[in-house]
Amino acid sequence: MTRRGEFRLIADLFAPLSAGCAGAFGLTDDAAVVDVPAGRSLVSTVDALVEGVHFLPDDPPDLIARKLIRVNLSDLAAMGAAPWLVFLAACFPRDVSGAWLEGFAEGLKADCAEFGIALAGGDTVATPGPATFSLTALGLVPPGRALRRAGARPGDLLFLSGTLGDAALGLKVLRGEVTADAESAAFLADRYRLPQPRIGLGTRLAGLAHACLDISDGLVQDVGHLCRESGVGAVIDLAALPFSDAARAVFGPVALDAALRGGDDYELAFSAPPEASPRILEAAEDAGVPVAVIGRVEAGTGVGLLGPKGRIPEPDSGGWNHFRGDP
Amino acid sequence: MTRRGEFRLIADLFAPLSAGCAGAFGLTDDAAVVDVPAGRSLVSTVDALVEGVHFLPDDPPDLIARKLIRVNLSDLAAMGAAPWLVFLAACFPRDVSGAWLEGFAEGLKADCAEFGIALAGGDTVATPGPATFSLTALGLVPPGRALRRAGARPGDLLFLSGTLGDAALGLKVLRGEVTADAESAAFLADRYRLPQPRIGLGTRLAGLAHACLDISDGLVQDVGHLCRESGVGAVIDLAALPFSDAARAVFGPVALDAALRGGDDYELAFSAPPEASPRILEAAEDAGVPVAVIGRVEAGTGVGLLGPKGRIPEPDSGGWNHFRGDP
Repeated sequence: MTRRGEFRLIADLFAPLSAGCAGAFGLTDDAAVVDVPAGRSLVSTVDALVEGVHFLPDDPPDLIARKLIRVNLSDLAAMGAAPWLVFLAACFPRDVSGAWLEGFAEGLKADCAEFGIALAGGDTVATPGPATFSLTALGLVPPGRALRRAGARPGDLLFLSGTLGDAALGLKVLRGEVTADAESAAFLADRYRLPQPRIGLGTRLAGLAHACLDISDGLVQDVGHLCRESGVGAVIDLAALPFSDAARAVFGPVALDAALRGGDDYELAFSAPPEASPRILEAAEDAGVPVAVIGRVEAGTGVGLLGPKGRIPEPDSGGWNHFRGDP
Repeated sequence: MTRRGEFRLIADLFAPLSAGCAGAFGLTDDAAVVDVPAGRSLVSTVDALVEGVHFLPDDPPDLIARKLIRVNLSDLAAMGAAPWLVFLAACFPRDVSGAWLEGFAEGLKADCAEFGIALAGGDTVATPGPATFSLTALGLVPPGRALRRAGARPGDLLFLSGTLGDAALGLKVLRGEVTADAESAAFLADRYRLPQPRIGLGTRLAGLAHACLDISDGLVQDVGHLCRESGVGAVIDLAALPFSDAARAVFGPVALDAALRGGDDYELAFSAPPEASPRILEAAEDAGVPVAVIGRVEAGTGVGLLGPKGRIPEPDSGGWNHFRGDP
């Protein structure tokens, strides 16, 4: 297949993904026109992915597209919102192949179906640089029910969905930096490439959790964000961190570091009062996602770590920071 | 100034631009939560700009930021919508300077103020490639009043706001491909770097125009889009095309080619029945934008050009197409 014109690309591959949204006009107009359903607030987020930074050049195109959608839906989940519409800005390298574009569109299609959303608009351009994508996701939440980073209170328990560090280990596996048995390696790589936005859990936490965010910069750094916005401190019990079997199969300290500082987990960290625990565990069961208590919120500031010999000094740096060389 | 961390960048430079939107939470949360005002539909569009493709590497950073906002607001204007909120995905080169970032933020600030909008969210990442930005703009329109590309009817007059070809000539001036006197050169460069979204006109055209779009791919190609979506043809009278004094000062055929095929004009082309002309001219006067009748809509398909010796053959290719090498 030869390269396609932008308009043909949109018409052939992307327009069908707008079918669920009449106001997208089949992606033939300058903008989409939609009505937010009555009794819903609009939740909006945008995230960008850059080849070589947020995904690997040889990652399958369908998984790149799905990761793009999922990192945004994870932000919606962290707010307790249900996903509604997405808008794509895609900068494809000039020599992108038709097969790659088709794979990318297949990934969008798969996740539009999986999450019941529509592609309602976008822009497609050529870039002389690495493939670069940004996606804006619109979600819906009942008024006043959105989960915030602010709101955690001393005495709250600190909860975490799923398991920790898998994505960071998956990246190390894909880069050949750690070795694992084939099954573990496949599991970890999948966790890096195909995050699971915790929509079902997030929407059920509205009204239950005091504060919530998703883990995209590393547990310690992200819990730090939650604490700062809430004006509280927190202590994380290392013995309580939930690991997958695959993560356990990797050398211990590496897995622990990945759990504490690795990004890309896209699990939900949230705080809630102890008396809400039964309802939270019920919500987790309804959503089909394991939830663990990994620590507690306290008065003060900062994130402490509790090891086998008691409280250990705060790590000197958290998670992934895109611009190094801070003053 | 040394490079800044992403969080500091957001807090120092971008968060102040969210002040007008309480639901942006000072850009400290995972997403914005807002309520669409009662009696308004939501209009949403996204456009990407890539360094070296959509702007020049040495363009001033404040003008790049403002162009990014304005190309999106132009899409809202084309739908008859009033701008409301914007969301920014910014991929900065790793070696970007603090001064450049501050200039970029200054440009965002200037246009947030000029258009009465707020930056309600975003994502900031580093890229190994060219600076790449995408912006999602949300606008508001009374239900059922959005202007569409579809809707033009045979017998309609074809209108155009402002003047044509200035931006394409400005790019040629900046590239040294054409020469012009200093005053004309400055005017044309400004038209390339700082498009004027025709918000005031667009919002006044709702209920008056049958169909509307903004000129971003070149007049012939864009009017072709309007015709295709409306199921009609059109004829453009070359003698009626509105040129600026600066464009007239440039060699004639070059200016005509820029007017017909150049992109980046961001003027509104729209159709309306002849009897609506008085109200359209009144709307244009209220909006402070000149409007010219440049042709008419007819039954059939395609865009014809009317020259001094009558109808001339359709040009073989229109406007700017990002992916060359179509089959």
